[in-house]
Amino acid sequence: KMLRRVLCTVLFMGALPSLAEVSQGHISVVLLGATGDLAKKYLWQGLFQLYMDQVSSGHSFTFHGAALTPLEPGQRLMFDVLKKLACPPDESPNRCAVLKDQFLKLSQYHQLKTAENYTVLNREIETLLRQEGLKEAGRIFYFSVPPFAYTEIARHINSSCRPPPGAWLRVVLEKPFGHDLESAQQLAAELTSFFREEEMYRVDHYLGKQAVAHILPFRDQNRQFLDPIWNRHHVERVEIVLKETVDAKGRTSFYEQYGVIRDVLQNHLTEALMFLTMELPVNVSRAEEVLQCKLQAFQSLRGLEKNSAVLGQYQAYASQVQEELQKAQDYISTTPTFAGVLIHSDSLRWEGVPFLLTSGKALDERVGYVRVLFKNRAYCTQSETLRDAGHSQCKAKQIIFYIGHGVLNTPAVLVSRNLFRPVMPEGSWKEAVGQSDLHIFGQALSDYYVYNPVKERDAYSVLISNIYHGRKDFFITTENLLTSWAFWTPLLDSISHQPPRLYPGGVENQHLLDFEMVSGEVAFTLAEPVELLNPNRLMPSDYRTIQSKFRQSPLVSAWSEDLITQLASDIEKTASRTVASSGQFHLALSGGSSPVVLFQRLARHHYAFPWKHTHIWLVDERCVPLTDTESNFFSLHNHLLQSVRVPYFNVHPMPVHLNQRLCVEEDRGTELYAKEIMALVANASFDLVLLGVGTDGHTASLFPQSENGLEGARTVVLTESPVRPHQRMSLSLPLINEARQVFVLVLGKGKHDITTLISRVGREPRKWPISGVSPSSGQLVWYVDYEALLG
Amino acid sequence: KMLRRVLCTVLFMGALPSLAEVSQGHISVVLLGATGDLAKKYLWQGLFQLYMDQVSSGHSFTFHGAALTPLEPGQRLMFDVLKKLACPPDESPNRCAVLKDQFLKLSQYHQLKTAENYTVLNREIETLLRQEGLKEAGRIFYFSVPPFAYTEIARHINSSCRPPPGAWLRVVLEKPFGHDLESAQQLAAELTSFFREEEMYRVDHYLGKQAVAHILPFRDQNRQFLDPIWNRHHVERVEIVLKETVDAKGRTSFYEQYGVIRDVLQNHLTEALMFLTMELPVNVSRAEEVLQCKLQAFQSLRGLEKNSAVLGQYQAYASQVQEELQKAQDYISTTPTFAGVLIHSDSLRWEGVPFLLTSGKALDERVGYVRVLFKNRAYCTQSETLRDAGHSQCKAKQIIFYIGHGVLNTPAVLVSRNLFRPVMPEGSWKEAVGQSDLHIFGQALSDYYVYNPVKERDAYSVLISNIYHGRKDFFITTENLLTSWAFWTPLLDSISHQPPRLYPGGVENQHLLDFEMVSGEVAFTLAEPVELLNPNRLMPSDYRTIQSKFRQSPLVSAWSEDLITQLASDIEKTASRTVASSGQFHLALSGGSSPVVLFQRLARHHYAFPWKHTHIWLVDERCVPLTDTESNFFSLHNHLLQSVRVPYFNVHPMPVHLNQRLCVEEDRGTELYAKEIMALVANASFDLVLLGVGTDGHTASLFPQSENGLEGARTVVLTESPVRPHQRMSLSLPLINEARQVFVLVLGKGKHDITTLISRVGREPRKWPISGVSPSSGQLVWYVDYEALLG
Repeated sequence: KMLRRVLCTVLFMGALPSLAEVSQGHISVVLLGATGDLAKKYLWQGLFQLYMDQVSSGHSFTFHGAALTPLEPGQRLMFDVLKKLACPPDESPNRCAVLKDQFLKLSQYHQLKTAENYTVLNREIETLLRQEGLKEAGRIFYFSVPPFAYTEIARHINSSCRPPPGAWLRVVLEKPFGHDLESAQQLAAELTSFFREEEMYRVDHYLGKQAVAHILPFRDQNRQFLDPIWNRHHVERVEIVLKETVDAKGRTSFYEQYGVIRDVLQNHLTEALMFLTMELPVNVSRAEEVLQCKLQAFQSLRGLEKNSAVLGQYQAYASQVQEELQKAQDYISTTPTFAGVLIHSDSLRWEGVPFLLTSGKALDERVGYVRVLFKNRAYCTQSETLRDAGHSQCKAKQIIFYIGHGVLNTPAVLVSRNLFRPVMPEGSWKEAVGQSDLHIFGQALSDYYVYNPVKERDAYSVLISNIYHGRKDFFITTENLLTSWAFWTPLLDSISHQPPRLYPGGVENQHLLDFEMVSGEVAFTLAEPVELLNPNRLMPSDYRTIQSKFRQSPLVSAWSEDLITQLASDIEKTASRTVASSGQFHLALSGGSSPVVLFQRLARHHYAFPWKHTHIWLVDERCVPLTDTESNFFSLHNHLLQSVRVPYFNVHPMPVHLNQRLCVEEDRGTELYAKEIMALVANASFDLVLLGVGTDGHTASLFPQSENGLEGARTVVLTESPVRPHQRMSLSLPLINEARQVFVLVLGKGKHDITTLISRVGREPRKWPISGVSPSSGQLVWYVDYEALLG
Repeated sequence: KMLRRVLCTVLFMGALPSLAEVSQGHISVVLLGATGDLAKKYLWQGLFQLYMDQVSSGHSFTFHGAALTPLEPGQRLMFDVLKKLACPPDESPNRCAVLKDQFLKLSQYHQLKTAENYTVLNREIETLLRQEGLKEAGRIFYFSVPPFAYTEIARHINSSCRPPPGAWLRVVLEKPFGHDLESAQQLAAELTSFFREEEMYRVDHYLGKQAVAHILPFRDQNRQFLDPIWNRHHVERVEIVLKETVDAKGRTSFYEQYGVIRDVLQNHLTEALMFLTMELPVNVSRAEEVLQCKLQAFQSLRGLEKNSAVLGQYQAYASQVQEELQKAQDYISTTPTFAGVLIHSDSLRWEGVPFLLTSGKALDERVGYVRVLFKNRAYCTQSETLRDAGHSQCKAKQIIFYIGHGVLNTPAVLVSRNLFRPVMPEGSWKEAVGQSDLHIFGQALSDYYVYNPVKERDAYSVLISNIYHGRKDFFITTENLLTSWAFWTPLLDSISHQPPRLYPGGVENQHLLDFEMVSGEVAFTLAEPVELLNPNRLMPSDYRTIQSKFRQSPLVSAWSEDLITQLASDIEKTASRTVASSGQFHLALSGGSSPVVLFQRLARHHYAFPWKHTHIWLVDERCVPLTDTESNFFSLHNHLLQSVRVPYFNVHPMPVHLNQRLCVEEDRGTELYAKEIMALVANASFDLVLLGVGTDGHTASLFPQSENGLEGARTVVLTESPVRPHQRMSLSLPLINEARQVFVLVLGKGKHDITTLISRVGREPRKWPISGVSPSSGQLVWYVDYEALLG
């Protein structure tokens, strides 16, 4: 009845054509958490905006606020919110007043607590529709509730509130969506048991920010200018930044669990990054194409390491946590409230371009922006004083998507005038005119073309409109979400015990949080100032590399990441020294998983390694084709050789694949390899052999009780592994022992038992082949991480 | 007698210890061209300075001015010059007056014209020494004469004026030292027939400029700061600039032959470049070490191409040349008066760093500097307005060796304050203090540590002092000179007919001479403005790529450089298209010299080439080890593979070297290669085969009358070449003809006859194997340069 009355009013106003003729059906919007903060602040206003925008669309609407509060107080609370709904400045006050009145009449409060409550709600919707003679178009359930309530609500909706066939269901979910890959997977699995992928709309409100939402359209509409320059040859760096002045006070119970990376970087800033780096789909308005390209962009991100990030924590945070969470005086929080992260993409387009994601609380200003800085490739012959500002190619060239706040205090798109005059959609963006002596990003504002939205719209309004339009590309799909967590979780794990740098907050921070890039990593620019260090603060990871003895040989031990750093650096030193003295460096590498991290480290951080004079040999190989993913050489190629410049002639894979068959004795692969070694390596004495250890004490592909290779000639042998692929080729122990240096790398808890065992036994290669490693005139060094050493 | 009198005066003054006790011997300085411009302006003053500096050194001096002018007028002319010698401001006027008086007495004029004149001079020196009882230390002959007079003078000195054994001879030579590699070699050969290398001091007066001369000492004294950053990871670009406001008026007879590259870049700017890029010797004061390192730096320079430079000519130049050289009205000069050149070094330290050398006449200001700009690797979290100027890591970081003139109007060394406070030798450089609101290189002068020389010294004074001290590292050795010409001559040749851009001169130039780097080349930023183009100006090289038919197939023809550009771009297009459709691209490449330029082009300018999905095959190979410089694969590796990222598995050298022997039938290399092709290339149909043509009409390694490969199976064959190495492996003609595309590249005059011949003959592969190339279902395209096509 109420609905009919409202619809009549609308018809009476002449704003709507006859219902019977054009009805697109009815939409029920259910806002769960209708009296919560987010609803109060943004969601009801967004729904009201939706109603104003779509009142003439042919759809009819009802709005159902819901919460756990009983009916009467709930109603009161909700209508207090609704009464305060604002009319947007671009709406005529008259029309708005009428529409607001209608909106209030179309809105209703429900207590949703028990299964029964949901059944009742469903029945009410059905009854209403029947009474009004309306076809149902769909239902939107907006979850503005804490995540622990998700599953329960989802179950009820799925079992009691699904619309009839032909009408759609859209459930809108607010973050957090888990707090690492595992929890996100779990949550996703639960939701997937209730909803189909196309029914779920996961909100990242950044995607509704006008400047962020315009990144893709901008790239699309300016293809002619951007196509030649939107790549690693022209882009110097990209900064994606969200700075806040507020701190976490009053929210530490949430914040202490999440921290800045989960709160801002994993979602908001990463999404903006994807819009920048993804390949442009042919049609940017096709959601599936956009989502597909975005996923591909995720897949080319290079994995993060501990040193990909710098972390900070404002000084007052610790006491806020102690107070709000009733923690003991000696409680130490390592939750970062500031992070700067360096991200690389390995795509052909972006390889080598640094993407800096930065966010923090208690900083000196509130501002958000995405800044693309182009390389200066020009030399301006005219002297500086005579250069014409607008045209000089020597001025910085940048494109900035200004999200809001800061000196501009409005969303904006800025393009350096010496770059190009962008194409902007006239209806939604207008060029800012008028003088300003503002300086921004190192230049006068007048050096840019500046555009502002014609109407400033709140992110939630934008998103609610996109839910209504079914634009799934404005939301986070399950695949997108899990890919993002898969990307961030290793970093989160590796820094979980790392002490963040303390900072005083606000302008007091000065240069304390400035950081810089050094060979693919980041570090704070200023050394830790002594006065800020908390003397009582003892960090769990406060260990250093230790040096000792293991089986009478030198031992280097540390946490695995530090150990790899040390090992890579020791290998480079050996290489440089050897090349300096003999002109070449013969390095024999093992397969397996441990060396992969080492290979990556060498590829990414050792630019001065004398690769050109290095020969790469294999210690052992599986009898599979070299291009098989199981091949040791394939892994070596993938993680190291593809990234460095070793001459083709210096690469020596084991000839396991001859005459189109694998490791057949009569093809004499072992002889071939041995001959190659004898021909190129002086005295068959490798400069450095890198070995690992198996849990059974094997090393290279020399297994306990092996018939070949444990003693006898300095040669290459075929062996049998207890695990598949069984057939192997390996250097023999006597050949390994000719090396001038042997490094043995042992990583992980799984190796603790064998590490303990071999620390005690004598030389018994038939039982434990590794115990037979003992270079006859060279040096042996053990690199064993704390987990393997101490368990 | 005169000498003794002067020496007595000196002793009387107490400035010198007793001659008999400490005499280091006598030095005779002979200045040839004693009354010329250079002598008047700089050299006599430099010699006087030497005398003032060294009067107490224990050496005694006589100075002999010489010219072609007869004795009396010559004497008068010379003493007019000497009387005007200035006292330096840091010298006490009293002492200077006395010393000047002595200097005049020690100086004498000689007419040096005939052989007799030289003999007389020699006799006079000998007599003087005998009379004074002095031991001879050495003789300096300073050639301040036009280069055409060099040989004659050198012959006379060598035959008549050499000092007795035990005393040294130093001949000082002024540029030009030839005007290309050949002429420089010729001149050097002549001089070498008269003088030993260590006797020759070739002057490049830039090496005496205080800021340039301090580059190496600065690098040495600041090793601790520079060691980590003086490399490609930290340096963004280097600019070496000499801008002049004057034009060539009155000097066009010289200038028209030389132009700005020979006048300034080949010598002055290149020398400064070497000081920057060379590896630091352990001991920078050891001349041989310095010279050795400098030569190595030369050797890592990447060869210049036509597009390595942008060229300009000020508008008035043409009429000045016409007037001064009495040229006809339609005379066209292509001599550049402005050049910007992009140089790359392939050393590990500098790979990828752009070095921009720029010089020109009739520009807007007079200034010279060497500017090293470092990369900004920092992100400054603090907002711009709050950043502390001195410490912000986000401000530009640069080191500038300011040669002189410009806004500073004094030599200086500038180091950004956020970089480091440099160590400067206190005696010779002092820190500039005091306020200044100057802006320089984009920053306030107060952002730099600024140092000026304690005494400003003229370049010639510095050099004359270094001649006296025998510091050969301040001069250009023969090897250094020829290496420099070898580097510059190819560019000079390739641009000799290129029309320079016309520019109005002075501030009118505006942005007309600004240029930018695009994939390893440079180009003017602004398109050629129509109003400046001379409509009467027809340029000799004003050709375009033509497209036509050759042997019924498409023909692309152009000058060789443009042809290679086109071919490389066509190959990339084919590759991208093929990878897009089938996921991989099978490219078979020929050996020989023509493809080398193509390989380099592909390696340096085709960043988007899908190398990761490209398979590289060889069309033919010589039966030598792959690491032999004669190997086709070796050349391919050197010029292409070493620079791009083709996966190891995708590289397919021909197996000419099996079982430690070359191309033995029973090792079945040909079968092996054929099998590899069948296994990987669908239908054994290569996506693209690149061929060449020999003067005998051979292609691949298929020679006329060959028994193998011209017909029959699609296979790989062993063949015999008429030239060494005789044994070859080659794809057969039938296999080549399976390709989906075949490009034939023919370059150079030497191929004109065969090109003409095969344009006429039919399909006769036994006579001319190339005529048998005719892909059965693919496309054939001829790439023939104008020289091969037109002779």
